[in-house]
Amino acid sequence: MAQKPSIPKGTRDFGQEEMAARNYIFDTVRSVFKVFGYSQIETPAMENLSTLLGKYGDEGDKLLFRILNSGDAFAGVDAGAVQAPDGSLDGRAITARVCEKGLRYDLTVPFARYVVQHQNDISFPFKRFQIQPVWRADRPQKGRYREFYQCDVDVVGSDSLLYELELLQMVDMVFSSLGIGVLIKVNNRKVLTGLAEICGFPDKVVDITVAIDKMEKIGLAKVEEELLERGLSAEAVGLLEPVLTLEGTTGEKISVMRKLFSDKDSATGLKGVEELEVLFSLVESAGIASRIEMDLSLARGLNYYTGAIFEVKALDFPIGSICGGGRYDNLTGIFGLPGVSGVGISFGADRIYDVLKGLDRFPSGTGVSTRLLFANMGDAELRYILPVVKALRGRGISVEIYPEAAKLRKQFEYAQKKDIPFLSICGADEAASSSVNIKDLASGEQRRFPSEDVDAMAGFIG
Amino acid sequence: MAQKPSIPKGTRDFGQEEMAARNYIFDTVRSVFKVFGYSQIETPAMENLSTLLGKYGDEGDKLLFRILNSGDAFAGVDAGAVQAPDGSLDGRAITARVCEKGLRYDLTVPFARYVVQHQNDISFPFKRFQIQPVWRADRPQKGRYREFYQCDVDVVGSDSLLYELELLQMVDMVFSSLGIGVLIKVNNRKVLTGLAEICGFPDKVVDITVAIDKMEKIGLAKVEEELLERGLSAEAVGLLEPVLTLEGTTGEKISVMRKLFSDKDSATGLKGVEELEVLFSLVESAGIASRIEMDLSLARGLNYYTGAIFEVKALDFPIGSICGGGRYDNLTGIFGLPGVSGVGISFGADRIYDVLKGLDRFPSGTGVSTRLLFANMGDAELRYILPVVKALRGRGISVEIYPEAAKLRKQFEYAQKKDIPFLSICGADEAASSSVNIKDLASGEQRRFPSEDVDAMAGFIG
Repeated sequence: MAQKPSIPKGTRDFGQEEMAARNYIFDTVRSVFKVFGYSQIETPAMENLSTLLGKYGDEGDKLLFRILNSGDAFAGVDAGAVQAPDGSLDGRAITARVCEKGLRYDLTVPFARYVVQHQNDISFPFKRFQIQPVWRADRPQKGRYREFYQCDVDVVGSDSLLYELELLQMVDMVFSSLGIGVLIKVNNRKVLTGLAEICGFPDKVVDITVAIDKMEKIGLAKVEEELLERGLSAEAVGLLEPVLTLEGTTGEKISVMRKLFSDKDSATGLKGVEELEVLFSLVESAGIASRIEMDLSLARGLNYYTGAIFEVKALDFPIGSICGGGRYDNLTGIFGLPGVSGVGISFGADRIYDVLKGLDRFPSGTGVSTRLLFANMGDAELRYILPVVKALRGRGISVEIYPEAAKLRKQFEYAQKKDIPFLSICGADEAASSSVNIKDLASGEQRRFPSEDVDAMAGFIG
Repeated sequence: MAQKPSIPKGTRDFGQEEMAARNYIFDTVRSVFKVFGYSQIETPAMENLSTLLGKYGDEGDKLLFRILNSGDAFAGVDAGAVQAPDGSLDGRAITARVCEKGLRYDLTVPFARYVVQHQNDISFPFKRFQIQPVWRADRPQKGRYREFYQCDVDVVGSDSLLYELELLQMVDMVFSSLGIGVLIKVNNRKVLTGLAEICGFPDKVVDITVAIDKMEKIGLAKVEEELLERGLSAEAVGLLEPVLTLEGTTGEKISVMRKLFSDKDSATGLKGVEELEVLFSLVESAGIASRIEMDLSLARGLNYYTGAIFEVKALDFPIGSICGGGRYDNLTGIFGLPGVSGVGISFGADRIYDVLKGLDRFPSGTGVSTRLLFANMGDAELRYILPVVKALRGRGISVEIYPEAAKLRKQFEYAQKKDIPFLSICGADEAASSSVNIKDLASGEQRRFPSEDVDAMAGFIG
């Protein structure tokens, strides 16, 4: 095999520096999830296709990676039965026969499956997080991969708005810890439903949301024109006008909407407004550092969310949303367990990585591992330093010994290439005087320690 | 869908307690790898089949999970061309047409692929570790899964025996940290090759190793009988007798072998003996806590290793090897980069888990996350405690608030079910006096803190 090996398109190797940077993100997220009392679970990479199919729409079904059944998958499949009239194989028919499993497409459906499967072992409200890769047979593009990690945090089994608050607090704590300024947008699906209902066009939720979203760009006249084109009546458009032109503080906006829904007697709309009001009031009581605002045009995952909808954008870096989520009232219903309300968010590790990289906000030294290199001065000196090295490692300090008694220049180059900040050259003199020399390669400062004073060495190496 | 959902056989969900226990193992292993200067990498779950096929023998090829090409994989495949004479589909022919990718079968081949692919970006010796799941279409059994994690640590680009020492030190440190007493067995492939050579049966390495292994069980006479049955000459068997009956200290054993190889002029055997001698001498200089012994019957991965061979067994728990590895001189040769020597070991996370569980050695509290539950006494009290909760979480303490103002009994049960050790019930009195009550549920001790003295609370909660 002379050809240089490669990996499947849309997948990535992570070298030590990328890994260190990614672990910094995952560790931050994980530690925040933990102080809010969320526990980690993991589900298998492979799920039965019966679990996955039909959960992501037709387009999603096409993007599932299917796994060929093990053994001879095609044994017993009669060619005639799976053949199209033109002699080619009928892909759909044969795939159903030879593939029973697929790779995880997201963490939400496996989580729903997990909750239903283990419902008798779980105590509700069940607070879990999950950090695992997912796979999608999307066309690879810049920033879009076929394998990528998701970090999901959800709580199911309660409809308390305290959990909406918790999620916003976690978002705030994660991005504060990472040093990324963010804008958190909040909406509520019930408000959108209420708007469509009072207009008399309950199936036009998406059109109305899109219209609100376009207000800033094209103005009221054009937006109203578009709504008419999309089939809304003039009366309906008139009704929506106070919402389209909504201004002021969150409190003022909420007042306008409350009046509208009250006048039109929309219980759903009023419930949505009330949820927004309570949530913003809880946020104020708890105090968060991030910017947070109500955005009625926010409609991500509209078919899916039933209450709060969240989206997070980086303030100082142009990229799509880096985090998002919302409340869903019937996630586990698809697996036969109805009435379990949940709310969750997902952090986009790849985009957060891009933001940190773009803003140069990774802490210095994230990628560095080894603190101290002992030069290899020959067998006798090696045996002299072995116990010192052992003692330093026992204190949690990362230490390497150069593998052979090569020229010092070569050993020094190794330290440089690996960004190792300290170097120790212990020759016959040091061994004879039971001392250890350590040099700070950045400052040039060199110090000598008694070989048994490992604490002092550890203090110097930091 | 009324049927309770399930996962593919041979795969597992990990709930919060198992995850915590597994993370305890991974964190221990990872921190040890780090103090020895090894850096983490990750490779994709999917590799091209051209990377994987032929690397694990015919049996391994059959155990690869293959991924159906995305899009319509069967488009353009003519049924006639992939049809067996009996009308069924020719599995081998069609699989080659519709599957280009497979799931990672181990971490070794992807690592070799990684080294060759990124050879210009890597500085050698390259010290890496990798903790990721692998997938094998094995028949699931007790203790054998189709998805399981491997923890591999390897260094490539040097043949220094210092790295063999490092690996043994890492094994020692990992199992000392985990509180598992182990026996480390060490062998050298060159010694086995030398023995087969001096007998005049260079192709009988496996037979000779098996014979040595059986000595304890069936005794010299029977072992010699078997060797004759397996085609060795009487002279060869006579030559092996001093090795079969080897006794005494490592030093004494090495002397006997050195004399044998010296008499018979086996350069390979002598090299092997010398490597063993140097390694044991380095181990003595460095000092390790685990039991370590030479075992000439150790032959794992015989086709693969070219120098040292390691295997680790738990002393106090009956289970197969929990860690193993060795030196390989030509791992990257399969991808066109010859002459890169490496040595590595792999920790078996599932078996280590079983040992820790069997010996009850998981530290207490591994599975517990939340330290303190605040009871929910109503809206006003909730708003009073929110800033306190925030401050505690800011100090890294895991805190939850019960989601609604339910009966206290119900809230208390939640704390019990989740093993939350501290409970705070702050009602109107506490709010009025700006104080916070915290009760240690195990000891019954209850303390009251000024609401701003978060440090004192943190100290009490631990």
